[in-house]
Amino acid sequence: MTSSTTSTQVRLARRPVGEPADSDFTIDTAEVPALGDGDVLLRTIYLSLDPYMRGRMSDAKSYAAPVELGDVMVGSTVCEVVESNAESRPVGTYVLAFTGWQSHAVVPARQTRRLDPATAPISTALGVLGMPGFTAYAGLLQIGKPQEGETVVVAAAAGPVGSAVGQIARAKGARAVGIAGGAEKVKILRDVYGFDEAIDHRSPEFAAELKAATPDGVDVYFENVAGTVGEAVVRRMNTYGRIPVCGLVADYNATEPREGAEPGPALLRRVLTKSLTIRGFIQDEFVAEHHADFLREMGGWVGAGTVQYREDVVDGLENAVDAFRGLLTGRNVGKLLVQVGEDPSRT
Amino acid sequence: MTSSTTSTQVRLARRPVGEPADSDFTIDTAEVPALGDGDVLLRTIYLSLDPYMRGRMSDAKSYAAPVELGDVMVGSTVCEVVESNAESRPVGTYVLAFTGWQSHAVVPARQTRRLDPATAPISTALGVLGMPGFTAYAGLLQIGKPQEGETVVVAAAAGPVGSAVGQIARAKGARAVGIAGGAEKVKILRDVYGFDEAIDHRSPEFAAELKAATPDGVDVYFENVAGTVGEAVVRRMNTYGRIPVCGLVADYNATEPREGAEPGPALLRRVLTKSLTIRGFIQDEFVAEHHADFLREMGGWVGAGTVQYREDVVDGLENAVDAFRGLLTGRNVGKLLVQVGEDPSRT
Repeated sequence: MTSSTTSTQVRLARRPVGEPADSDFTIDTAEVPALGDGDVLLRTIYLSLDPYMRGRMSDAKSYAAPVELGDVMVGSTVCEVVESNAESRPVGTYVLAFTGWQSHAVVPARQTRRLDPATAPISTALGVLGMPGFTAYAGLLQIGKPQEGETVVVAAAAGPVGSAVGQIARAKGARAVGIAGGAEKVKILRDVYGFDEAIDHRSPEFAAELKAATPDGVDVYFENVAGTVGEAVVRRMNTYGRIPVCGLVADYNATEPREGAEPGPALLRRVLTKSLTIRGFIQDEFVAEHHADFLREMGGWVGAGTVQYREDVVDGLENAVDAFRGLLTGRNVGKLLVQVGEDPSRT
Repeated sequence: MTSSTTSTQVRLARRPVGEPADSDFTIDTAEVPALGDGDVLLRTIYLSLDPYMRGRMSDAKSYAAPVELGDVMVGSTVCEVVESNAESRPVGTYVLAFTGWQSHAVVPARQTRRLDPATAPISTALGVLGMPGFTAYAGLLQIGKPQEGETVVVAAAAGPVGSAVGQIARAKGARAVGIAGGAEKVKILRDVYGFDEAIDHRSPEFAAELKAATPDGVDVYFENVAGTVGEAVVRRMNTYGRIPVCGLVADYNATEPREGAEPGPALLRRVLTKSLTIRGFIQDEFVAEHHADFLREMGGWVGAGTVQYREDVVDGLENAVDAFRGLLTGRNVGKLLVQVGEDPSRT
């Protein structure tokens, strides 16, 4: 029966220079292979688009190997099992998988995690209860360690990681200051996510507004943006401040050094004179020890409405590249998903 | 009787631009004040010269207030009590104090720590068993956290902090790689301090030699130098590497940004892709919790010969400024002390 199943696939054709172009990718169809023992055939419902993917398109040295030219772009997906050689995953099961930018894939069942549509919408496994939510949770709590009454600042604060950082900080008794680009997002920070202060980094008075929003300085800066915004926040750090570094999206597309960027020695001088901690991390390192806590605690907050989330769903794989460009430039609000196939769990 | 006691004093006359000049200081004598209740009159035997003093000469924002123009330069000293209004510190007692660049001073006895010349030479209270030794001990063990078999790199490795870092690392089962300037110091690293590898940063093949000396990469880089040497080591860091930042002596005299210095964003990218920890510190923050352990453990190592130390003693306060210049450019080897008065404990 699967002999006739084809998968629509987005493959990396060239390594993008700067902003990814449509011509850096191909879209084609291919037959899916036959199922081996323990395999499942998955139909993709949602594909998650995340900033880390820009790094995988490049062959610069990083924490993960790049996608090879000609290979299907990687990515997390929520799928439905449509054929199964694994008892644990009968047909009709919803799963979290890592099948990438394609409509169908055959994978070992053990590489999937079962999702229960009764406890939370299945799409949240890619957002607030998935990797972005866990990135916020682990980085903020394990590295940032916000104490009651301390000030936590996060940029890209309307995004899936930033919005979770702010809400978790508040749940732990800290003061949350969010930075985002544009009046619409700033309004969402206040009205949807409940940040104590929200600032527009596009404002000509940004530095003064940041200062006014952090009268007691900054104790934790969750760095997922870098660039001039990050530099402005780092100048406001208090002694013993902590800076979890989870992303540098402002510099991901950079092909040459940003003019006026603060030199490394000046950054180290701040680190020394303020006894700062800067710590890079990828959420993977915390999974074994903290993921179960995350699902329990964050699941509780989401269920209780303490933590809010938003999703931006773009229709069709053919629009994934353009949507991804928008992600890097801050075009969308909320967790960016590509709807690859219909979601029967959504009534 | 003290009415006739005068103190020879080195005062800051101007804020140095770049390297401190003789004309930035004055040397004069002044009468010491009368002793109040609980005070002692101290005669300075040794004055410690340390890199942090360059920061105190400047009024740039830092972790400590600058020395005011016209004030006596600050500094740690080992002194003898020559007159006492405090029962706990009879005449003839040796003490550690913070009386600065002068020959005599009146201070409250409680601002001094008693030294026992029978357990260790009193000068070591300014070096291996003093602030430099504790800086190495606390920064390496609390932030660097070297594990058995890991590679620890330190620059200015022949200096009082660096030599202690290397020897403590080895005492804890790690591999110690030392960097110093010039063949004489490199030989001392191997022969006196027992580093596993020693490299001359003046070598034209420095980068290649560093690579050869760290075939498994670098797990801990104890940063007390910065500059191009620091950048070269940071490039060799392993995933989850730790960088305690205790000094940036290569940039202390800098009046403008070093040409070719790595930009901050490039440093942050390394932090992110390697999940590095960079943590600035001043030894003060660890005193309450770890200083007693330090005196016990380090005292034991020094007594057993596990940890070696060297002192460079310069004679006379009038030579302190020149000696301090030499400290910043790496002229001396070992802990730099000024002999301000005779040491009766040395037989």
